[in-house]
Amino acid sequence: MKKLIIASTSTVHGGSYLDYILPELDQFLSEVNEVLFVPYARPGGITHDDYTTIAQNGFEKINKKITGIHTFSDPVKAVKNAQAIFTGGGNTFLLVKMLYKNNLMEVIRESVLNGTPYFGTSAGSNITGLTMQTTNDMPIVYPPSFKTLSLVPFNINPHYLDPIKGSTHMGETRETRIKEFHNINTQPVVGIREGSWLNVEGDRITLKGELSARIFEQNKAPYEVASGAEIDFY
Amino acid sequence: MKKLIIASTSTVHGGSYLDYILPELDQFLSEVNEVLFVPYARPGGITHDDYTTIAQNGFEKINKKITGIHTFSDPVKAVKNAQAIFTGGGNTFLLVKMLYKNNLMEVIRESVLNGTPYFGTSAGSNITGLTMQTTNDMPIVYPPSFKTLSLVPFNINPHYLDPIKGSTHMGETRETRIKEFHNINTQPVVGIREGSWLNVEGDRITLKGELSARIFEQNKAPYEVASGAEIDFY
Repeated sequence: MKKLIIASTSTVHGGSYLDYILPELDQFLSEVNEVLFVPYARPGGITHDDYTTIAQNGFEKINKKITGIHTFSDPVKAVKNAQAIFTGGGNTFLLVKMLYKNNLMEVIRESVLNGTPYFGTSAGSNITGLTMQTTNDMPIVYPPSFKTLSLVPFNINPHYLDPIKGSTHMGETRETRIKEFHNINTQPVVGIREGSWLNVEGDRITLKGELSARIFEQNKAPYEVASGAEIDFY
Repeated sequence: MKKLIIASTSTVHGGSYLDYILPELDQFLSEVNEVLFVPYARPGGITHDDYTTIAQNGFEKINKKITGIHTFSDPVKAVKNAQAIFTGGGNTFLLVKMLYKNNLMEVIRESVLNGTPYFGTSAGSNITGLTMQTTNDMPIVYPPSFKTLSLVPFNINPHYLDPIKGSTHMGETRETRIKEFHNINTQPVVGIREGSWLNVEGDRITLKGELSARIFEQNKAPYEVASGAEIDFY
């Protein structure tokens, strides 16, 4: 049975890395000692090693060992052997390009479908959807495709941001951007606010955390789903 | 000699469409009666016809006729015959995909290099750079390439936004996104704030409008260029 935690962010304002979600992770990874970390998204351009150290510092509070996938000569084999997988945030275009380059998209998908627990934050959450096309990131590299893991039957918008009241900025709001997406694409989009996450157990998808999520379906007005509720488009 | 106006936005807060830049456009297009409008970026998903009406309403204040490129059976010929070209804002991925689909990228570039005046706002400005990789837009469609018109020797970031003081949002700031871009790409990026624009006359590029621009070069601290100054990386 597939098991995922799909989190909006690694860090909430005023908190330290992963702090807000460690109790959930402790339970989610209760049978896991070692987690395979995918650092490819490189937030702010930091190195794979430095990013892995950050992840290790977060996970050592719940006594898990973190190993960066970049340290394996055969990353496909590393995924197949992993007890659990964590993909961190950063730039989604870079992450997706690296996953395709290393032939990892399909093998991660198969591992998770076969029961390997998967935890993602931000870009690492975005790729659990059907495509990466509702990312907020800049297209700093050209990936061979926008198709992603399709482990949930919709797209993710992490760091979902409500329109800022009184803003004088004329750039598109997040909601306008997703409306533009739905002018061309049919799949639903789940906007997850910072501090909330989706818990996936097989086909059961539950919103958890502090805040409601905002759901966008083509040709419908956007609507809210409360924390604790199921997300169900079947 | 190439002549371009590369504007951050079509509309400044509290103003109406193009109002702030009409005096500049009136001068820029003094020898032009009719402007070919490229509505492909479809802001908010509006139709090509509706978008062309908006452009017409803006330009009729300076007595220019606007014709949408989508109304021509041969858009390549329409570009070759155009007195001037205006590409409006919206979604850059959609705009670039449509330009490639209709074989327009190279012909617009050649026309502008041969002296056809070009005016762009937002997405229409982004594509005047070397690549579209510093757009702020969502990747709602997959274009065949990120390469764009290369009419200036750098990339554009329109609607440049300074970090918001006191923000509790943990998504990347614009500056962080551009830093991630420069971890992988070498070309300079010019962040143009809303209300400012670049005036290009041959190789001479001048910042105009209310606000300074923010310049990002690889392996340098970002810096400001004042309105009235030249932008020069040669």
